[in-house]
Amino acid sequence: GARSSVPQKLAEALSSQYGLNVFVAGLLFLLAWAVHAAGVGKRDLLCLLTALMLLQLLWMLWYVGRSYAQRRLIRPKDAHAGARWLRGSVTLFAVITIILGCFKVGYFIGFSECLSATEGVFPVTHAVHTLLQVYFLWGHAKDIIQSFKTLERFGVIHSVFTNLLLWANSVLNESKHQLNEHKERLITLGFGNVTIELDDHSPPCNCSPEHLCAALAQGMYYLYPFTIEYQILASTMLFVLWKNIGRSVDGARPRHAGLRLHGVLAGSALGLVALAATLGVVAVYLVHIGRSKAKSEAALAMFYLYAIALLLLMGAAGLLGVRIYRVDEKSLDESKNPARKLDTDLLVGAASGSWLLSWGSILAIACADTRPPYTWYNLPYSVLAIAEKYIQNLFIIESAHREPEGLPEDVCTLRVVTVYNRAASMASLHFGDAGVARDTPAVKGSLGRQPGLGKEEQEEEERRGKGAWSSALGVPFFPGSAKRRVLRNITVFLFLCNISLWIPPAFGCRPEYDNGLEEVVFGFEPWIIVVNLAMPFSIFYRMHAAASLFEVYCKM
Amino acid sequence: GARSSVPQKLAEALSSQYGLNVFVAGLLFLLAWAVHAAGVGKRDLLCLLTALMLLQLLWMLWYVGRSYAQRRLIRPKDAHAGARWLRGSVTLFAVITIILGCFKVGYFIGFSECLSATEGVFPVTHAVHTLLQVYFLWGHAKDIIQSFKTLERFGVIHSVFTNLLLWANSVLNESKHQLNEHKERLITLGFGNVTIELDDHSPPCNCSPEHLCAALAQGMYYLYPFTIEYQILASTMLFVLWKNIGRSVDGARPRHAGLRLHGVLAGSALGLVALAATLGVVAVYLVHIGRSKAKSEAALAMFYLYAIALLLLMGAAGLLGVRIYRVDEKSLDESKNPARKLDTDLLVGAASGSWLLSWGSILAIACADTRPPYTWYNLPYSVLAIAEKYIQNLFIIESAHREPEGLPEDVCTLRVVTVYNRAASMASLHFGDAGVARDTPAVKGSLGRQPGLGKEEQEEEERRGKGAWSSALGVPFFPGSAKRRVLRNITVFLFLCNISLWIPPAFGCRPEYDNGLEEVVFGFEPWIIVVNLAMPFSIFYRMHAAASLFEVYCKM
Repeated sequence: GARSSVPQKLAEALSSQYGLNVFVAGLLFLLAWAVHAAGVGKRDLLCLLTALMLLQLLWMLWYVGRSYAQRRLIRPKDAHAGARWLRGSVTLFAVITIILGCFKVGYFIGFSECLSATEGVFPVTHAVHTLLQVYFLWGHAKDIIQSFKTLERFGVIHSVFTNLLLWANSVLNESKHQLNEHKERLITLGFGNVTIELDDHSPPCNCSPEHLCAALAQGMYYLYPFTIEYQILASTMLFVLWKNIGRSVDGARPRHAGLRLHGVLAGSALGLVALAATLGVVAVYLVHIGRSKAKSEAALAMFYLYAIALLLLMGAAGLLGVRIYRVDEKSLDESKNPARKLDTDLLVGAASGSWLLSWGSILAIACADTRPPYTWYNLPYSVLAIAEKYIQNLFIIESAHREPEGLPEDVCTLRVVTVYNRAASMASLHFGDAGVARDTPAVKGSLGRQPGLGKEEQEEEERRGKGAWSSALGVPFFPGSAKRRVLRNITVFLFLCNISLWIPPAFGCRPEYDNGLEEVVFGFEPWIIVVNLAMPFSIFYRMHAAASLFEVYCKM
Repeated sequence: GARSSVPQKLAEALSSQYGLNVFVAGLLFLLAWAVHAAGVGKRDLLCLLTALMLLQLLWMLWYVGRSYAQRRLIRPKDAHAGARWLRGSVTLFAVITIILGCFKVGYFIGFSECLSATEGVFPVTHAVHTLLQVYFLWGHAKDIIQSFKTLERFGVIHSVFTNLLLWANSVLNESKHQLNEHKERLITLGFGNVTIELDDHSPPCNCSPEHLCAALAQGMYYLYPFTIEYQILASTMLFVLWKNIGRSVDGARPRHAGLRLHGVLAGSALGLVALAATLGVVAVYLVHIGRSKAKSEAALAMFYLYAIALLLLMGAAGLLGVRIYRVDEKSLDESKNPARKLDTDLLVGAASGSWLLSWGSILAIACADTRPPYTWYNLPYSVLAIAEKYIQNLFIIESAHREPEGLPEDVCTLRVVTVYNRAASMASLHFGDAGVARDTPAVKGSLGRQPGLGKEEQEEEERRGKGAWSSALGVPFFPGSAKRRVLRNITVFLFLCNISLWIPPAFGCRPEYDNGLEEVVFGFEPWIIVVNLAMPFSIFYRMHAAASLFEVYCKM
């Protein structure tokens, strides 16, 4: 490869500023379309997105071709990036995105006499883009690009922001749909005092087989949540690829972590019950909401009570997990790892979106003049939603920074380690108490990094050292393997609960709209704007937390 | 100090999540007040802000007291954080903030019969808070906190977000004021088709000496821009303090960089002309705008033409600077430095705010149905505003990552270095050409770090190695000291220009409101929301760029 002519920092600044400009310009196009700006039609917006996708397609083809031509070269890889399960879930969501593309093409054919050609070109381009991008991510998500840096930086950052714009486009479509449904409910319930207009972008002609078009339009909105997740996952993977450009890595490869499911019966059973219950609650909610005032209030009360119970359980599980980690004090792995840093930042950033909504509810309850009984459930719900995310983030962050436990035992290395361990326990006996032993994390840390540790023996030693300490703090005594089993159960339970809690807002069960309290206090328009800005992050938080918990589980 | 009981990563997550929750809750309070939410008065908002400030005051007192008690301990310091000029400008802005506080107290006394006591308590608390905070920043901005980490992390992050909330509060007041002025102009010009309501928060009683109150109210809005800068500067300094907690630093202290003003006559003269011209243009603009349609259009055309000329000059200067750096290829300093990383991120992030506005203008021109002649100036203005920030950021980022040049010559070390240099030039002569010599940055880098380099000699050597190369690329040949002089002139010129361009939007010269084009395309409400969200960042960008350029200049 040729030597890059600009230093690392400058190439970074050059490309990130280009990407931000593409993004900002695209966002304004989306805004213009959303507010029905004069002169900006859906056609212009789709043209822009298609052009961006085509540019990315060209770049990906160039990159794949060049990699193929130079396939004999050994290239460094970031073993932390693009984990197999991550690529797997991207593929799953991509398949649904392509199905959505087929729906859109069908819809276009139905309305073809009054839709512009771009509405047909866009889904086709998007499907091709999705296919090639998934192939690209399978093959190159772990790459650490060292040559031709500038062109590659531009290509990768272009891909990141193109995917983010596609995400924003899907989110906008979904939000408009939800808002229209909300307004229809308000009209049904007879709230005519707000000047409610449906925000209609439907084409001005009739579809030829009418029931088919209606079914397609309806079905599309059940697929949007998956497309939204696909776009954001793809852009995070590409962003990690961008952060990795020009990085120098040490050769240490993390051990392949498999998925083992034994010993997590309690966690998965409880989680599956939560999942089933959530599906039931969402179905009942969607049937009852907006039918009549009494039915709406009953549905809201049911949802709040259920969510309160679930969040309490999740919070308790998270607290227990953090507590177990605190008892078993270890030095954390603070090595540089762009994939992990991004995950952590996204977790806290996305949680901020949902905190905004929850604090809005709390403020609304505090300030409202009249408080119908069902609105009182909103207060504990909002407080718990804040606390649960706070605790869960702590649990995930601590888990992600732990060295993997439960390594496969290898007889050959076992003996060596036994000797090491004996020496270490001799040393700790020599110093006489557990406090001193805990103050030597360097020794433990270096032992922990040995592949194929004699885990049982180390735990034996830890038990000896820590028994007195943990029981003095009033924590039940967990031997190592039991501790690990509890942590695994907690992780599985939280994983399934996060999947459960992703479903209600993604599929239209949004009490922030329906309870009416916030709308009265803040006013209809301001609160709708807040919800539409914060809700995508709140939904993303659940999926991202589930993904992080899955990764944590695989490493445990 | 006591040993912290939670690991670094966890303490970070604990405190940052706390801070984000405080911030998000505060933002919703501000929003509620801004949209006249039922049940949220100005009193509640001020109570919240006062409580946050008091909490921060208590924490600062505790911290200062404990530091005083333990003053004999040697503590590590981050020499890059809290530069002297930064503390100086914070102090300057803080003085103006305290004057604003006095104005507010006067205003409160005038209207005392109908204002709640909180309106008097708030400015007094704020003044005390400002005083103590400036003292705190002078004494402790460079601290690297190692003990009692958890409590200190919470205190620092609380301070960061309290200052950010005070910033948001000032920005909101300022935006409301600007919006009201804009609406008054629209009413004067007879645009009655938009339903314009003044967003009035003025107290419901008369002031006793009426002309004094009017003068105070008017004067306050000339002081707000400075308060806004004070709050954001203070919170960035505190954020660097937070990032530094628990960090381990190497002992290397950067050389004290002084401010030398010789040899920058051209840059400062040109910059001062720009500053004077800007003041003139702003004065004419503010007098003419909104008087009549013709006068408004003339004022807009004048502003655009002037800004186009200035941005062209600035862009050219920035390009020249980047070009000079590219000719003189050096390995950049990539060491860890939280203060510098934050500065860079803020620069790019704040620029994104103004890019949003510029892209909005470009889109509006592209989509508008009718384009009065003066709106055509808007297109080159917006394009140049984007390009100029792009180039300027590249220049600042590259400058910030260069090792300081022009070190004071010390006879004692000079001799040692001369020997080193001879050896190095012997080596490069041995390898025969400049290409190889450029490929050994490690040797040069380690030489560059020696304090008190024989600069002239090194440049002599570089000249020998690079003359042929740079003239081959068609770049005029700059000897080292001339090159440095050009860079210093560029930096001074850009510094003064950024100060100039800070003035128009901060003091009410906002063509984004007045040209009317964007409002027609996007609609009044959406565009006003975009401007009010993006403008604070756009204004902050100018002040922050000026600060960064000042720092760059001191190091040059």
